[in-house]
Amino acid sequence: MSIQAIVFDAYGTLFDVYSIGSLAEKLFPKRGAALAELWRDKQIEYTRLRTMCSTYKPFWEVTQDALVFTCKKLKLDLTLDAQNMLMGQYAKLDAFPENLGVLQRLQSMGLKLAILSNGNPEMLDAVVKAAGMQGLFNHLLSVDAVKKFKTAPEAYQLGPDVLGLSAKNILFVSSNCWDACAAAWFGYTTFWVNRADAPLEELGIQPDAIGADMTALLRFIEPDAGTE
Amino acid sequence: MSIQAIVFDAYGTLFDVYSIGSLAEKLFPKRGAALAELWRDKQIEYTRLRTMCSTYKPFWEVTQDALVFTCKKLKLDLTLDAQNMLMGQYAKLDAFPENLGVLQRLQSMGLKLAILSNGNPEMLDAVVKAAGMQGLFNHLLSVDAVKKFKTAPEAYQLGPDVLGLSAKNILFVSSNCWDACAAAWFGYTTFWVNRADAPLEELGIQPDAIGADMTALLRFIEPDAGTE
Repeated sequence: MSIQAIVFDAYGTLFDVYSIGSLAEKLFPKRGAALAELWRDKQIEYTRLRTMCSTYKPFWEVTQDALVFTCKKLKLDLTLDAQNMLMGQYAKLDAFPENLGVLQRLQSMGLKLAILSNGNPEMLDAVVKAAGMQGLFNHLLSVDAVKKFKTAPEAYQLGPDVLGLSAKNILFVSSNCWDACAAAWFGYTTFWVNRADAPLEELGIQPDAIGADMTALLRFIEPDAGTE
Repeated sequence: MSIQAIVFDAYGTLFDVYSIGSLAEKLFPKRGAALAELWRDKQIEYTRLRTMCSTYKPFWEVTQDALVFTCKKLKLDLTLDAQNMLMGQYAKLDAFPENLGVLQRLQSMGLKLAILSNGNPEMLDAVVKAAGMQGLFNHLLSVDAVKKFKTAPEAYQLGPDVLGLSAKNILFVSSNCWDACAAAWFGYTTFWVNRADAPLEELGIQPDAIGADMTALLRFIEPDAGTE
């Protein structure tokens, strides 16, 4: 295989965005799951609207806007305390359990590893540190550098530019099918971590490979390593 | 007021996209509402992804893709017959009941009226005809002309270009808050038909006016006309 580097999406792929659901459930009993889900959907929607309309602002602020909207929509009283707790949780999301081991193994194989995320640099630094993943990535790439969120080509272009490789020789890994599909449109080799057993998006393109979690990625990269 | 023309969004604003819910309910008992809602969300999502990634294809096809995904996601068996019935329904959506009278009144005031829609021309022709709205619009503008869906500026630019007016002198009317906000970003004077009593999107901008239905638009245009 000619894969020389792996670029990971952050939120939803390395870090579990739904892990804030438990805090949300404490703050708003019986509404935590609905809050977490709509917050995530709205956050992504706002990134797309702001990208198409050239009204970028940092992901942290977009995330906060999405939280405010979500609570209005669900008729939940979002106190400043609750807002700070939920946003604070966003800065230290849980990593999926298998990820640290998989990343260490990939690093030991000599692959360059990077994150390419909608998150602004401060968010990425915080969440990587909280997950104990310092030192595993050669680059933390934020779309903030181009002021356009994924799925703008300018955002995906950061990978080849910084790594000095063609997109085809970079494996782009995301748990968001739309992200993997758009990266495939861009030219990356792509891997969709389909944790939720979701159907493929009907976009007329598909990822080069699909697995249920990050250990499946390891088997894709190193076919003989997946037997333990 | 310096409004010289009114540009309407079509789906959701003039035509009720959720009216397919009743057909969906017949085809898939107890799942009709879920189907209609996810179909709509996914349809809009695909327009945004395809716009950001320059992979445009006509709205009819995108709508069909979204239906296929929705049924896979909801684990509904979409037969070809059911697909054709649902898509056929999309071509003749119900108009909201007050719309015809309001449009006739606006036309009689000498205002230029247009539709600016994600729908491709064939879809717009069909749905306008089915609703008995022929002759009410000076222009049926489809984003197909620029191969980018809303909220791309190129899509909104069709209004000023074809009408020969500045965006500020055109009232853009949509029941989708994101559409009204993006049109405001673009430079239109904007009116949000907030039929569902939804909260304002947290996008840092708001429509110039908001009303619960199209009769409220009439009162906005012609303040003395709203008393009957």
